[in-house]
Amino acid sequence: MALSLDEASLSQLFLSARTHNVWLEKPVPDEVLIQIIDLMKMGPTSANCSPARILFVRSEAAKARLKPFLSEGNRDKTMKAPVTAIIGYDLKFYELLPRLFPHTDARSWFAGKPEHIQETAFRNGTLQGAYLILAARALGLDCGPMSGFNQAGVTQEFFAGTDIKANFLCNLGYGDASALKPRSPRLSFEELAKIL
Amino acid sequence: MALSLDEASLSQLFLSARTHNVWLEKPVPDEVLIQIIDLMKMGPTSANCSPARILFVRSEAAKARLKPFLSEGNRDKTMKAPVTAIIGYDLKFYELLPRLFPHTDARSWFAGKPEHIQETAFRNGTLQGAYLILAARALGLDCGPMSGFNQAGVTQEFFAGTDIKANFLCNLGYGDASALKPRSPRLSFEELAKIL
Repeated sequence: MALSLDEASLSQLFLSARTHNVWLEKPVPDEVLIQIIDLMKMGPTSANCSPARILFVRSEAAKARLKPFLSEGNRDKTMKAPVTAIIGYDLKFYELLPRLFPHTDARSWFAGKPEHIQETAFRNGTLQGAYLILAARALGLDCGPMSGFNQAGVTQEFFAGTDIKANFLCNLGYGDASALKPRSPRLSFEELAKIL
Repeated sequence: MALSLDEASLSQLFLSARTHNVWLEKPVPDEVLIQIIDLMKMGPTSANCSPARILFVRSEAAKARLKPFLSEGNRDKTMKAPVTAIIGYDLKFYELLPRLFPHTDARSWFAGKPEHIQETAFRNGTLQGAYLILAARALGLDCGPMSGFNQAGVTQEFFAGTDIKANFLCNLGYGDASALKPRSPRLSFEELAKIL
């Protein structure tokens, strides 16, 4: 039976981890991005449907393509982040179910049901986006997730000709802890949970 | 600068963690459920909006209320799980923004915009659902997340008189590893990510 991770690990993942807006000048190499995906993709999704699709925007040219679609408050910090992940979800995910969930005909649960496809892709693609955030933190990186951007614009610019839609963005790198402001408050246990 | 967690921790969170369907007869006490929430609530949400609301269904009476809304394939294993978390999201989350995000008028970004409210609550409530899964694993528990249930029925039965909607369910406990089947395949890096 597994034990709890140690305090330092719980702290790195959750308790003292912070959303960062200012980045150290330390690049994020390919092998770290590959490790993030190798962890993220093992997290659970409904019928293993795995709809998330990730673009790691790292080059200056790719950053320039992203820039016009960022909200003003997110623009400068995103241009300065070592990497910006675009977390998308593929509305054609169900075409892969014969391979990803081979023991039953899961493709037929979705074909011709656009509302069910959209909800399943959004829910599970978002779960995978959270796995990406925690995978990056587990590997020692800091994250800066954002939903303040022009979704339709990013979808058109980066996913044209596919059925992938942009969901949210996440800056990745090594954050400058000296630039952090005090943490925002959280709800109490009683406000957000109940044991029945 | 943070280092990567060790291999055993990455394995417990992602690499060897599995969705469980068969549970050991070991209860999950209140203090572990409280710890899960204490970790989960520290994960990032957009403008700290924190829309997730969790019901831990543990008593026989509460399990009996849940039973009629489960899909057939999820019914028996859920009845036998030590705890079933109902992960919901509160469409009135923005009323708390003056407290959760006090340095600007974030409430006004949402008031009177039902589509923006729904999308934000669903996205961020789902991110928090993934934090709950990984928090439980970090504490040594196993998870069995599910979306095969009657959402409207669970919403009506458990959240009547509120603006909270059921999102997904997650069985929690200590899984019987001897009952696991071989793991389903995952997509390759090239199929799900690209570095630009």
